[in-house]
Amino acid sequence: MGDRLEERARKVPGSHETAFMSYIKQMFEAHPFEPAIDHSRAVECIVACYSCAEACNACADACLGEDKVGEQVACIRADLDCADICLAAAKIVSRITATDRELVGAQLRACAHACRLCAQECEKHAPHMKHCAICAEACRRCEAACQDLLKE
Amino acid sequence: MGDRLEERARKVPGSHETAFMSYIKQMFEAHPFEPAIDHSRAVECIVACYSCAEACNACADACLGEDKVGEQVACIRADLDCADICLAAAKIVSRITATDRELVGAQLRACAHACRLCAQECEKHAPHMKHCAICAEACRRCEAACQDLLKE
Amino acid sequence: MGDRLEERARKVPGSHETAFMSYIKQMFEAHPFEPAIDHSRAVECIVACYSCAEACNACADACLGEDKVGEQVACIRADLDCADICLAAAKIVSRITATDRELVGAQLRACAHACRLCAQECEKHAPHMKHCAICAEACRRCEAACQDLLKE
Amino acid sequence: MGDRLEERARKVPGSHETAFMSYIKQMFEAHPFEPAIDHSRAVECIVACYSCAEACNACADACLGEDKVGEQVACIRADLDCADICLAAAKIVSRITATDRELVGAQLRACAHACRLCAQECEKHAPHMKHCAICAEACRRCEAACQDLLKE
Repeated sequence: MGDRLEERARKVPGSHETAFMSYIKQMFEAHPFEPAIDHSRAVECIVACYSCAEACNACADACLGEDKVGEQVACIRADLDCADICLAAAKIVSRITATDRELVGAQLRACAHACRLCAQECEKHAPHMKHCAICAEACRRCEAACQDLLKE
Repeated sequence: MGDRLEERARKVPGSHETAFMSYIKQMFEAHPFEPAIDHSRAVECIVACYSCAEACNACADACLGEDKVGEQVACIRADLDCADICLAAAKIVSRITATDRELVGAQLRACAHACRLCAQECEKHAPHMKHCAICAEACRRCEAACQDLLKE
Repeated sequence: MGDRLEERARKVPGSHETAFMSYIKQMFEAHPFEPAIDHSRAVECIVACYSCAEACNACADACLGEDKVGEQVACIRADLDCADICLAAAKIVSRITATDRELVGAQLRACAHACRLCAQECEKHAPHMKHCAICAEACRRCEAACQDLLKE
Repeated sequence: MGDRLEERARKVPGSHETAFMSYIKQMFEAHPFEPAIDHSRAVECIVACYSCAEACNACADACLGEDKVGEQVACIRADLDCADICLAAAKIVSRITATDRELVGAQLRACAHACRLCAQECEKHAPHMKHCAICAEACRRCEAACQDLLKE
């Protein structure tokens, strides 16, 4: 199974990403309702939110494993907030049976802000800690995806 | 952003998956600790857990949008349990600073069981509801990934 | 254990609440940092968020058990959003090591809005479904607690 | 609002608990289904799980605020796992429309184990850190409530 994953995984050039599987695009196409929001922007936002939560949760743990953990406190703190907010946003944007645009907007604004804070903190450590560089990338992408969906 | 997403997405042949990006493999490589568990199996399990949670949450919503929602009650119920357990499992397996193998094992057993129950329920509806077919696939894959990591 | 619980529980007159135990007030007092936000308002908000998440999650399940589940779709939908947002808010307000007031504000606004939407939906069913009456009460209290903390 | 909370809050003698509100007992009474599991044990377990998640999340943050955060790494790690597992358990036990006893059992076993690990870690720090003493109490109570429900 690990081997099959390795086969499927492609390194995206110039980035820290590995391919994994998202079902959300197919789920939206199979959904009995027409979404009130743009499909591809919502898909990108949901995928970015789950990926960012995954990265933030892992970055918090990697920071906890650093020798100088005292210097990582603000980063761990930002990671945890960002992971929690991203998961809430991912779930809410996924629910298209009925969409309250104001609610989605409020959660996306909170999410974009959490991503920005976490990216700023991770970017301080990025030059000497690769996990922070990766996490910053995930956060910046998620911030952009939230902003993009907010523009609608 | 939606366009870039479309470019990056590849349909995996013969499946309902689209390839997106996970940061967990790079995060593990950047982590200051050596993991106590096999890298590639843990990566596959984490990715499968997030994907399954994504699919289950979306399937619950799609079921809620069906005309005959009364026939989807058991499916919605199974989806919600499975999504919650998968997210907890994903986060716990991601934390490798210290790994209590018994705890990981207990959560993986709960997760594999939740995935099996949800897959069984979704498979009943799969012939006439594509979102259930997709969700069943995500659940079976996650069940297998949990079992695979449990074998270690 | 159930018996001890019964002894400890008090019915709050005129409400659907039973008093149980929260540790957050003592946790704040034991915390090495002085919080940037008002203690008692933050405690009330955190407690209200967890209680509301608990009520919403249970109301969604009770709605799924109703004979006419088709009439409960909007309620289940609102319950799930509200539960997810409340838990994210509870965790973020609990973290006082460093508080980004703008982030807390953004999440509280999302939470207050989710609570209002869920309360409005539950109130429609409250006359004939007690679980919706209880959930509406939890949502209104949480909305008020979020608004109160936002006023700071 | 803060003031009303203060009025309602009672310090439980000999413990770190403050009264807060749980709606789950009333929700179970209002639920259209008869639960497959004992009411009062399930209520105690759900309340204990939410309280423990609240305490663990707050303890992780308090540990992050300690001067010697390097000595708190194992505690933060245990807190995060325990909080995630407790919330998953609370939600699953709350869903009584259909209860798969094996699934509930598996999640309760994972939860009891996470609580035991976290309590053991917190108890090491309890003599000189009150937040760890409080968290250990919440974890031990939750472990007992899970074990009690497992006995059924």
